Amino acid sequence: MPAIRILTEAQLRGVIDLDLGLVDAIDAAFRQLAAGGVVMPPVLSMHLEDVNGEVDIKTAHVPGLEGFAIKVSPGFFDNPRLGLPSTSGLMMVLSARTGQVQALLLDNGYLTDLRTAAAGAVAARALARADAATACILGAGVQARLQLRALALVRPLARAVVWARDPARAAAMATEASAQLGLPVRPEADARTAVAQADIVVTTTPATAPILRADWLRPGQHVTAMGADQPGKTEVDPALFARASYVPDRLSQARAMGELRAAIAAGAVAPDAAFPELGAVLSGTAPGRRDPQAITFADLTGTGVQDTAIATLALARAGSAGTVIDS
Amino acid sequence: MPAIRILTEAQLRGVIDLDLGLVDAIDAAFRQLAAGGVVMPPVLSMHLEDVNGEVDIKTAHVPGLEGFAIKVSPGFFDNPRLGLPSTSGLMMVLSARTGQVQALLLDNGYLTDLRTAAAGAVAARALARADAATACILGAGVQARLQLRALALVRPLARAVVWARDPARAAAMATEASAQLGLPVRPEADARTAVAQADIVVTTTPATAPILRADWLRPGQHVTAMGADQPGKTEVDPALFARASYVPDRLSQARAMGELRAAIAAGAVAPDAAFPELGAVLSGTAPGRRDPQAITFADLTGTGVQDTAIATLALARAGSAGTVIDS
Repeated sequence: MPAIRILTEAQLRGVIDLDLGLVDAIDAAFRQLAAGGVVMPPVLSMHLEDVNGEVDIKTAHVPGLEGFAIKVSPGFFDNPRLGLPSTSGLMMVLSARTGQVQALLLDNGYLTDLRTAAAGAVAARALARADAATACILGAGVQARLQLRALALVRPLARAVVWARDPARAAAMATEASAQLGLPVRPEADARTAVAQADIVVTTTPATAPILRADWLRPGQHVTAMGADQPGKTEVDPALFARASYVPDRLSQARAMGELRAAIAAGAVAPDAAFPELGAVLSGTAPGRRDPQAITFADLTGTGVQDTAIATLALARAGSAGTVIDS
Repeated sequence: MPAIRILTEAQLRGVIDLDLGLVDAIDAAFRQLAAGGVVMPPVLSMHLEDVNGEVDIKTAHVPGLEGFAIKVSPGFFDNPRLGLPSTSGLMMVLSARTGQVQALLLDNGYLTDLRTAAAGAVAARALARADAATACILGAGVQARLQLRALALVRPLARAVVWARDPARAAAMATEASAQLGLPVRPEADARTAVAQADIVVTTTPATAPILRADWLRPGQHVTAMGADQPGKTEVDPALFARASYVPDRLSQARAMGELRAAIAAGAVAPDAAFPELGAVLSGTAPGRRDPQAITFADLTGTGVQDTAIATLALARAGSAGTVIDS
């Protein structure tokens, strides 16, 4: 009967946060995905119309790591009416050699938030200009805040602007982020004006129709689209594909649920069009930013290798924390 | 932060076993699957060639139940060399209304073994002749033992025969089952001779080529094939499809991984051939056994509704047992 380490959200918050160590672990995971040998099946997505919910299950087995994560991410969108967060869930860590359960990370989505933000840092570090100093965040939720923190880890940010559909939420996030990052962060009422000021634009909304127009962008900018992690979601005008160097985290997954899915559906991109994945850009086997005036466009749908990478790091940092149960 | 109940294998063994209450719960689950409203996505199957392993993830959301299970079943086939069982795993129970994790059942495959056996009882109760008195089990593993116990719950068994590739294992199982069930259970060296004596034949092996020939069967017999739960596994001669009334647990899944998959691959059955599912037979909306001389043939690949049903029952029976962690 294997011994299983159990860590709660509070314990996980005590051992892992968004920092460069995590960014590097996520970076390494994307490189391993590009190098081959990773087994990462398609996302199991379960849609529960009757209860306005969904459950996504992601996993990836990475050669050389002792364990691999299986992550269960429920999103039940009527929960706020009950005073509960929409998202929750946990990660399991199984031995990569025996399949036995080694750990249960009861993170309620905390690790997913972090590894998603870290991927934003990885994409910006690979694709944004090295002198990028102004960030524009579209959206004002948890991921919006984390994406701004992530950018500040990898680029010399001097300022940021925030736009959200609800101006009060944009203002609240700007105040909070200014204090946290020690940077001027301003809310902006007009999305186009916000985008115009930025070197890096990150979209972090649950939009199902584009909120970022292609003709708002100018040479040299970098865009990371975070929101499209389900078929039906999209934040970016498909016309951007004709203007930008496009880099998905995982091509097959982006075709099924990313901005690429929406662009294919709109007829803007051929269904079989090939693009270099983020891991190939990181490994230098595919071009990323070709010149300072290029527009780069990362499409991050969220991958199982990120889950395995953060779970591995969290367990390593946790040491003997948590509860051990002999199953 | 939700409170999560955690039950170990030992605790689960203390509260749930193979009995008629469980058989009825699994029966009800198949009826609900037939009635509609159940959301049961395709199995997520991850094959890990480098470590001779696989992980299957199954789930089903059943209307009216408070929770639904997500089950993770690893099979790592080099584990016995390390002194470990090949299979392990756990079930999570999520709230059907909020998606929050309610319980973790650290069963190491125990609940899967039980719900698989209970489905054998359900199939025999629906399809075997009411006077079936002799069982033949092909295979001598954990599931072979459980299937014999399951049949004894639903049919007036007077005797049983066991055949296995390894005669010593068949003999050991026969001795054990005789004592446990209070019935004469004999090992049989020849599979055909074993089958000839039986009213009900259950195949429980990991075979990848048929071990049961269609021309061994005679009118009135019932066959349940348990082994084909992965593409590539098969136990039954495809010619049986022409002689028997075939009933899969889940048609789409049987086409992908059951005896039906093998029969389609062999050209014995058309890829789009339709068959009534077990739940439809149980509900009376499709015929099962048409007459006493028919041969009936159940193909059980293992379904998420069984996992949700047994997890629900185990939690109800557990009461306040286990450990509660505030995640």
